[in-house]
Amino acid sequence: MHAYRSHTCAELNKSHVGETVRLSGWVHRVRDHGGLLFIDLRDHYGVTQVMADPDSPVFAEIEKVRAEWCIRIDGEVKARDESLINAKIPTGEVEVFIRDIEVLGKSEELPLMVFGEQEYPEETRLRYRYLDLRREKMQNNMVLRSQMIQSIRKRMWDRGFNEYQTPIITASSPEGARDFLVPSRLHPGKFYALPQAPQQFKQLMMVSGFDKYFQIAPCFRDEDPRADRSPTDFYQLDLEMSFVTQQDVFDTIAPVMAGVFEEFGKGRKVDAAEDWPQISYKDAALWYGSDKPDLRNPIKMQVVSEHFAGSGFAIFAKLLEQDGTEIRAIPAPTGGSRKFCDRMNAFAQKEGLPGMGYIFWRDQGNGMEAAGPLAKNIGPERTEAIRQQLGLGVGDAAFFLGGKPKTFESVAGRARNVIGEELGLTDKDRFAFAWIVDFPIYEKDEETGKVDFEHNPFSMPQGGMEALQGDPLAVRGFQYDLACNGYELVSGAIRNHKPEIMFKAFEIAGYGKDEVEKRFGGMVNAFQYGAPPHGGCAAGIDRMVMLLADEANIREVIMFPMNQRAEDLMMAAPSEPMSEQLMELGLRVIPQHN
Amino acid sequence: MHAYRSHTCAELNKSHVGETVRLSGWVHRVRDHGGLLFIDLRDHYGVTQVMADPDSPVFAEIEKVRAEWCIRIDGEVKARDESLINAKIPTGEVEVFIRDIEVLGKSEELPLMVFGEQEYPEETRLRYRYLDLRREKMQNNMVLRSQMIQSIRKRMWDRGFNEYQTPIITASSPEGARDFLVPSRLHPGKFYALPQAPQQFKQLMMVSGFDKYFQIAPCFRDEDPRADRSPTDFYQLDLEMSFVTQQDVFDTIAPVMAGVFEEFGKGRKVDAAEDWPQISYKDAALWYGSDKPDLRNPIKMQVVSEHFAGSGFAIFAKLLEQDGTEIRAIPAPTGGSRKFCDRMNAFAQKEGLPGMGYIFWRDQGNGMEAAGPLAKNIGPERTEAIRQQLGLGVGDAAFFLGGKPKTFESVAGRARNVIGEELGLTDKDRFAFAWIVDFPIYEKDEETGKVDFEHNPFSMPQGGMEALQGDPLAVRGFQYDLACNGYELVSGAIRNHKPEIMFKAFEIAGYGKDEVEKRFGGMVNAFQYGAPPHGGCAAGIDRMVMLLADEANIREVIMFPMNQRAEDLMMAAPSEPMSEQLMELGLRVIPQHN
Repeated sequence: MHAYRSHTCAELNKSHVGETVRLSGWVHRVRDHGGLLFIDLRDHYGVTQVMADPDSPVFAEIEKVRAEWCIRIDGEVKARDESLINAKIPTGEVEVFIRDIEVLGKSEELPLMVFGEQEYPEETRLRYRYLDLRREKMQNNMVLRSQMIQSIRKRMWDRGFNEYQTPIITASSPEGARDFLVPSRLHPGKFYALPQAPQQFKQLMMVSGFDKYFQIAPCFRDEDPRADRSPTDFYQLDLEMSFVTQQDVFDTIAPVMAGVFEEFGKGRKVDAAEDWPQISYKDAALWYGSDKPDLRNPIKMQVVSEHFAGSGFAIFAKLLEQDGTEIRAIPAPTGGSRKFCDRMNAFAQKEGLPGMGYIFWRDQGNGMEAAGPLAKNIGPERTEAIRQQLGLGVGDAAFFLGGKPKTFESVAGRARNVIGEELGLTDKDRFAFAWIVDFPIYEKDEETGKVDFEHNPFSMPQGGMEALQGDPLAVRGFQYDLACNGYELVSGAIRNHKPEIMFKAFEIAGYGKDEVEKRFGGMVNAFQYGAPPHGGCAAGIDRMVMLLADEANIREVIMFPMNQRAEDLMMAAPSEPMSEQLMELGLRVIPQHN
Repeated sequence: MHAYRSHTCAELNKSHVGETVRLSGWVHRVRDHGGLLFIDLRDHYGVTQVMADPDSPVFAEIEKVRAEWCIRIDGEVKARDESLINAKIPTGEVEVFIRDIEVLGKSEELPLMVFGEQEYPEETRLRYRYLDLRREKMQNNMVLRSQMIQSIRKRMWDRGFNEYQTPIITASSPEGARDFLVPSRLHPGKFYALPQAPQQFKQLMMVSGFDKYFQIAPCFRDEDPRADRSPTDFYQLDLEMSFVTQQDVFDTIAPVMAGVFEEFGKGRKVDAAEDWPQISYKDAALWYGSDKPDLRNPIKMQVVSEHFAGSGFAIFAKLLEQDGTEIRAIPAPTGGSRKFCDRMNAFAQKEGLPGMGYIFWRDQGNGMEAAGPLAKNIGPERTEAIRQQLGLGVGDAAFFLGGKPKTFESVAGRARNVIGEELGLTDKDRFAFAWIVDFPIYEKDEETGKVDFEHNPFSMPQGGMEALQGDPLAVRGFQYDLACNGYELVSGAIRNHKPEIMFKAFEIAGYGKDEVEKRFGGMVNAFQYGAPPHGGCAAGIDRMVMLLADEANIREVIMFPMNQRAEDLMMAAPSEPMSEQLMELGLRVIPQHN
């Protein structure tokens, strides 16, 4: 017989009754039923009930066993009494009568219980991560993550992509976030950087002719920690293709994403990839107040300025006399109660706005009536026109926000989310996807008036060189995001592969040729030697697992995460270096004065 | 029609004749046949011949095209004349008559030709890596690497392993080599380290109950560069299993390795996994002079001390009077000429030994004769006993080395390699594998007399705690390597999972409990909470690709490698940091005085 096990703890069933077996695992729970000892023996695969009575030759040994000891037992498989069958687990029909036991690893007093539902502070969980990870939920999350990545890889291979590894110790490439630096020992005083993303390398691979690249790529950004962001390393499905248009990239990645969400979504509805809408950045802002809208929520905002221009509602009427202002409505089907409307108004005030005007429609026995101060101010005709535009009726409400869109758009977006949630309009059992397209290449700093890249400087402007001759703020890029349930899951672009257009694009943002060559030299040089048109995207792996596992904290889907202060208390990182190490690197630590 | 291509450059054949197609790719070669222009158009998948004559509407455009420009052409597929068919490429039956052309990316004068066999200095190749990678051999090497890793993943999944990612920004863990450090911004003056291997994390996962783990894991060691070693990051197939013996690990990894070598070995013979011998570290040293023997070479060394003890060959006879000395023979079938024997003697002298005695057997018409000075000194009886022991005959030779084995073993090993090569005994078309087992846990420093770990301090000693009570130098570990063709491909161990045995093992090597807890705290703490017996190994991915691609330099199998000075000239790494960056990290660079 094998030294440790003849079966896993998930394998035994009625067909094994009478066999002598060997199992290894952890003591999940011990119960003493009047001299009979029952142990739930747990391994990665499941739980098997093993038991002993005082006649067992090793009863005295078994009595000593405590929770989370790792043990090996030999014993005989017995059928359980009909009344004792546990249908919830595959081994529930049997139990094993222990004939022999070996303690493989004792346990000290546990700082964290594996069995049961007790909650522990995150610091405790991370410091004893190896115990925390024994819990069923964590085992499931990690296996989900692993199997999701496995499925992504298979799907990418099936589409003719090869996975190629790009350097992890490489050059600093300022892409927005802060680099992690790595001091060089062979070149003291110089530093490598960890890649924020393999952006330049994947584009270089396209210049090298590799045609279709992907990688489950570790990325590194020295950012301040947040619940949904790892403070150190995180993973992307990174891909790039040559000789493609934007639509080709969509047609490649959409079925991969849809397939993965279907495979691991546990029955939640997944919008079919061919139905994902393509919404312009501008429309997304108008309709949803966000460039990563949650389309599980059916609410779509609308411009209703015409109904307020010159109306009796002086605040909006005056507002509309200013350039660039608008009044927008958030329709709220089934939200037609004063109590709800007041609550939403309070929400807007908490978000820093003066409030949200509203109208709601009710029937108090004598036909439909529009209620709320706004309705009174603008009168019944305008009120009715608004109702008709929004397609609302009795029992519904609408909220109104006005001003320059930039000043209220994001609050409007959040209000839309809250309304959708509170009214139960948002379908929780669905993954709703949308492509957001036509991102502007540039934005203007309101204060300085300076034009800078809105996003990624490597995207191809729609209209190419010609477009760059006109108003920069009107230039849209072949640049896109995929939104899912209110999160940005994928981001990408068709790249600017023509050196002359790239230099021009940078010039508009105030970067001279020298600066561009210094910052992106590797890539810009390569484009001089026959660069193909290419494009791609990157999908956030951790975010995908979070959505699938229904977790709000990224640390629930990473095996050994840092805490919120970017520390690993279990491994004691970061730590003081040895002075020889600093010496070799030619570095000195500046004493900190707190 | 698609914006860039209707087909790849490997797809067209006779069945497409008459169709109008669109191709994109690079101008591999242009030939001018008296007004007819032929272009070999190349993409990732292959080459298609496209052509134009002066009647083509875009002939003037085509005349401008130069090597490595990236172009798109539209044209008509035509069958080639029978006499012009190129059977070597899949598209060799057709050519495309160009009707339209678009230049997608021009190229400057090339610093490195893609077409042809010209060699370039490594610095040129790395600086223009994106051009170097367009060469057929490099494309093939990178695809081989990618597909080999793909195959490994599939094989591991099939065996029930899940891939889990371990942290890349983590704690310093002194495992022999030098760490790369990463300064922390949130904790100025403290440093993270990049993992030399995920050793501690994979063991922690076993403590967490994950049972079967693998990872294609990036590893980081700040080592001085060598031809077969990357100066920064390299990859391992890292795996670990719970509740296993050494043989279980072998039975898991051996079929994976054998399968991969069969799949990508291009017909070279691969020893069947079940035939791989298990050779003790001690026997490997004796028989092959190496712990990573090349078993394609049939030569097996033997101890022949008895034949020299008290013999007329005074040097050896005297040597044998000292403790711990031996005489060993390297049999050299078919090496029986004075010329060859003298050359090998010279080899040994070049390697720093006084020389290698030899005997060779010849037949000058009157039966077998043993030749060489040694034979004369020891006389015919002893000479004949040696011949019989070694199983040699006419035309063969044997070489002899004596002293304390440590002083000559490695030279003997190298001599064995040279003999095998020069005599054509080493089968070049074979991958020959052997497990090397029973490594000693400890070694004694000859000078200081201090006992230290020979290898990895985490291995379980054979015999457990009891074995540690006796002579430490006699303790063997459950520790193993897999050798292939003279390289170490895999290294692993059954781990020491019992805290008390681990502390004892470290104590023997002079490390106190405090020291162990400080250096390996994460793991040692975890072992207090019910650790399972576990073990695993790691296989060198880059080394495997090198063997399969028949490359001697690791830079031929890495997409974007550093040069031998650990620099990336293309991306300009490492480089001077910005002073704000250093400030944020609380670091100062110490000026270097060269």
